Amino acid sequence: MIDDFQHVSITCRDLERSVSFYERLGLKVIKRIDEVKEQGIAQAFQLPRGHLKVAYLAPPQATSKIFIDLVQWLEPPSTGEVYPALNHVGINRLAFRVSDIDATTAALRERGITFLSRRPEMFGQGIRSIVTTDPDGVFIQLIEGL
Amino acid sequence: MIDDFQHVSITCRDLERSVSFYERLGLKVIKRIDEVKEQGIAQAFQLPRGHLKVAYLAPPQATSKIFIDLVQWLEPPSTGEVYPALNHVGINRLAFRVSDIDATTAALRERGITFLSRRPEMFGQGIRSIVTTDPDGVFIQLIEGL
Repeated sequence: MIDDFQHVSITCRDLERSVSFYERLGLKVIKRIDEVKEQGIAQAFQLPRGHLKVAYLAPPQATSKIFIDLVQWLEPPSTGEVYPALNHVGINRLAFRVSDIDATTAALRERGITFLSRRPEMFGQGIRSIVTTDPDGVFIQLIEGL
Repeated sequence: MIDDFQHVSITCRDLERSVSFYERLGLKVIKRIDEVKEQGIAQAFQLPRGHLKVAYLAPPQATSKIFIDLVQWLEPPSTGEVYPALNHVGINRLAFRVSDIDATTAALRERGITFLSRRPEMFGQGIRSIVTTDPDGVFIQLIEGL
């Protein structure tokens, strides 16, 4: 049966650009696979080929063992545009737990990270949250108190 | 700073239909919030309103503390179509770790779950994987050996 979550896969257009963003956010690259070429991936994913490059990233202090499987597809290439809004059907938001959202937001702004709102907003019951977007427009949420 | 992953948010069109799918997959509802109406959500998400209903789901034996934040938006309503292919830019795949992928796949087929490929495919180095889709078409991947 299903034991646990393992990873969240984000397809990007430019692996280095996205790795740089997630590193600025505070994640660390835990593995890189410069070239994957597997017929099994093509078959499992119903794509004509399975040729891609990959970086795994996770917060350095994380205990969950989950990682982002950041993928730039080479053949077929990464395609399309991300969901334009947070009420769009699909996996449209990845949330990270932060212990001090004001300090984190300020530190990230100094690193050039921008957010959808000026400050963290109350989500009720002591929960505060703010959302940024990665270089392709993927919604990344920071949450304190949930 | 960022402590860990917290949740993956999946927007669905019909909360009960999607809860039923994820329960058949083997996840458990760990919390339900029948009505959320928060101006802070609207502001953080840059949406005109923040009116939604929610179920949190996780594998019952999981130790990661991660959960799926399954959301049906009410106002504004859930909108749009999911990414049609696995090389589409965005968060397009959520992967679960399974300990016996053949037994899991067989058991899930008995519960009416369908998969993109006939059997789990080799992803190299002892890794095997198969992909299903939820009622809205969201790609859910099962992996053994990674």
